[in-house]
Amino acid sequence: MAGLCEWIRIPSIGVDPAHHADVRRSADWLADALREDGWPEVAVWGDGPALPAVFACWPASDPDAPTVLVYGHHDVQPVDPVQRWEHPPFEPVISGDEIRGRGASDDKGQVAMHLLAVKAHLAATGQNAPSVTLKLFVEGEEESGSPHLRKLLEDHEAELGCDLVVFTDTALHDRDTPTVNTGQRGVLGAEITFEGGAGDVHSGRAGGAIPNPATALAKLVAALHDDDNRIRLEGFYDDVLEPSTKEREDYAALPFDERKWLQHNGGGAQATHGETGYSTLERIWVRPTAEVNGISSGYTGPGLKTIIPATATAKISFRLVPDQHPEKVAQQLSRFVAEHTPPGITARVALRGEGVPPYAISPDDPANAAVKQALELAFDQPVRFARAGGSGPAAVLQQRLGVPLVYLGATLPDDRVHAPNERVVVPLLLKGAEAAAHLWRMLAQAEIAKRLSR
Amino acid sequence: MAGLCEWIRIPSIGVDPAHHADVRRSADWLADALREDGWPEVAVWGDGPALPAVFACWPASDPDAPTVLVYGHHDVQPVDPVQRWEHPPFEPVISGDEIRGRGASDDKGQVAMHLLAVKAHLAATGQNAPSVTLKLFVEGEEESGSPHLRKLLEDHEAELGCDLVVFTDTALHDRDTPTVNTGQRGVLGAEITFEGGAGDVHSGRAGGAIPNPATALAKLVAALHDDDNRIRLEGFYDDVLEPSTKEREDYAALPFDERKWLQHNGGGAQATHGETGYSTLERIWVRPTAEVNGISSGYTGPGLKTIIPATATAKISFRLVPDQHPEKVAQQLSRFVAEHTPPGITARVALRGEGVPPYAISPDDPANAAVKQALELAFDQPVRFARAGGSGPAAVLQQRLGVPLVYLGATLPDDRVHAPNERVVVPLLLKGAEAAAHLWRMLAQAEIAKRLSR
Repeated sequence: MAGLCEWIRIPSIGVDPAHHADVRRSADWLADALREDGWPEVAVWGDGPALPAVFACWPASDPDAPTVLVYGHHDVQPVDPVQRWEHPPFEPVISGDEIRGRGASDDKGQVAMHLLAVKAHLAATGQNAPSVTLKLFVEGEEESGSPHLRKLLEDHEAELGCDLVVFTDTALHDRDTPTVNTGQRGVLGAEITFEGGAGDVHSGRAGGAIPNPATALAKLVAALHDDDNRIRLEGFYDDVLEPSTKEREDYAALPFDERKWLQHNGGGAQATHGETGYSTLERIWVRPTAEVNGISSGYTGPGLKTIIPATATAKISFRLVPDQHPEKVAQQLSRFVAEHTPPGITARVALRGEGVPPYAISPDDPANAAVKQALELAFDQPVRFARAGGSGPAAVLQQRLGVPLVYLGATLPDDRVHAPNERVVVPLLLKGAEAAAHLWRMLAQAEIAKRLSR
Repeated sequence: MAGLCEWIRIPSIGVDPAHHADVRRSADWLADALREDGWPEVAVWGDGPALPAVFACWPASDPDAPTVLVYGHHDVQPVDPVQRWEHPPFEPVISGDEIRGRGASDDKGQVAMHLLAVKAHLAATGQNAPSVTLKLFVEGEEESGSPHLRKLLEDHEAELGCDLVVFTDTALHDRDTPTVNTGQRGVLGAEITFEGGAGDVHSGRAGGAIPNPATALAKLVAALHDDDNRIRLEGFYDDVLEPSTKEREDYAALPFDERKWLQHNGGGAQATHGETGYSTLERIWVRPTAEVNGISSGYTGPGLKTIIPATATAKISFRLVPDQHPEKVAQQLSRFVAEHTPPGITARVALRGEGVPPYAISPDDPANAAVKQALELAFDQPVRFARAGGSGPAAVLQQRLGVPLVYLGATLPDDRVHAPNERVVVPLLLKGAEAAAHLWRMLAQAEIAKRLSR
């Protein structure tokens, strides 16, 4: 994992243009690491509009073996509030059995896990090529909502052809409960700006007599949820698949310590809170959300400044579940904003990309069963199915490549991803690598291979 | 007015600790200017907790003449958004008949006006001392809500004793309609902080299942006003004096071009908006308000960051009218915040000082009549009575010094004070100086003097 620490030192914050050069350095670093590991075909895709992605291919010894494409990403989240980090985010430290730093878990750690898996697989099989043809595709825009992923998949259709996608940006339920993830929520991000006048106004000279964009935006945000915390965009729930009784029972059966969950995932939140009639796991796995990610207006410096702000802006992101469509939600949002824009205020809605569709795969899918079995071999205990509340381009990959997509990851929900002091638990990464190594071997078995290439 | 430009160059932003040294430089600059003008007694009061204030006294030739204390302030508002300024805010430019720069109007310009008035007065009377004993008191914390004014007035009771206060931080109705201001609104500023967890949280991992401080704060802000734009703090209107029919008629009779008013005071606002049943002038002069001055939460940088913010903060200020009490409104606000703090959120309310009480004086007051007459002499046209929507420590001065307080100013409501591109109209300052010079002479006349010292 020494290589991982080196990789973490590259601050590949894709959402911040000031760090785009670092995203390129991060891609080059990975490409070099793959060549050193002996991958015969390695390329950095960085010519198009997309931030650099890394592609690698290692053909199987058996030409009839199926092809497996491993997906991950090497861009990372911003680090603010940086003062809350216990150490500089891009100077990784090893503490106990953890590696700490931005990207340690999301997603550099899990990509490193798969590099390790290939070495383990070759060592275990004693061959100089994997049992399945392995392809690695590591993009640089996942934290930005993968705005150019569709184009990349089109431009490189030939290279990316495969029988199965293994999606590696995913977590286990907890340290003692290995699980196979069967789906992720989608996401749609938007920035809503209310503009009143051309400039700030003295709140004594005009206060009480003109619209206040901050107050108007607050009213819009307040109107986003009803008293049951259901989202009030018209038609928002039309395409939402209700969880089945079986699903609800499975989730209810998983170990869940709300106090501990609050500590870890709530960052110390003092209580759970959400849609009436659903458990916490249901709220984060199978129910859609509307969360304010940031809001700013007027004077926020020290002391008091008695103005009516000229503008107010809110960053809002929606988590979506099958079968919601980002583009439909975007239209619903535009209507909602128009309905909640008072006279004297001009509204702008800027979407962050086209959004990420939600994705789910049946636990009964043969590839999913293989992943479960591989994890059970590695963890030497029963493995169960779960879901993830986060988002990733699983649906885009599955749709464009036209093959099943399964999840294989070994991080934890309390790895503080997207937050200060992100970490990854190394022993879990090693087990995850072992599971992946088993998976390649199993996928090469005639029966599954046949099913896959059907 | 060359001196004024020099004074404006000193960025005496009192609300910003980084500029406290500049506030001191500003006080020293004024003290030196007064000494150069021949004021026999000049002092900078800067030892206590208050930012430096300047005091000066010039005794009348006639020991029985009344004593008049002129009040102003030399601290200025912050300048952001600085990119909206057409020139650097502290590099004053003379454009046509205007001087532009932060503080040109509020309040360095009007203090300079009174310095000029004394020179004019001495020139006109041909004496080497004013007809009334003149005292000048220019504080450095007005834009911060004068937090230490009461203490200053106590510590310097002896020096500040007078028969009348002339309050110079006030404006005319418009360029063609000279008016005497008869009152100002009070103000109470508060910063409300909602805290959820110890840190930001991944909106995928926990979104929909924990409280969002930004959403909760938005709901509180949205609840501040009802559908008639009346403020929903319990008891808020109990002490509000309804304007008399006479007042409402006077205000309705003043020239008022809403379109122009919007352009100037609305900073380009597209519509008026406010409490049902009141005109725009009534809304800004005799009705209380609650305005959001700033709000901030979560990620506000470039791109998207899918977090649930740990905290959210809103700066809110209330404009108050006779006979509201800031301390009572502070209590009403604390109750309101407590009632609107959801489970899982911790609220903090930080008041900005103890607030500024509202003040009003009768148009029939003899001193007020003298001001009106002085302005009529200077402007050579009828002068009417009006009110101001802004705030100042008039009530504190009047109460502590136990004498009447009148307003004499010659700036304009469209001077863009507290906003980018603040300016002052020089010919009006000159007329204002002439009016003040008349006022000193008139106040020395036995009859008014007697009434004053009653």
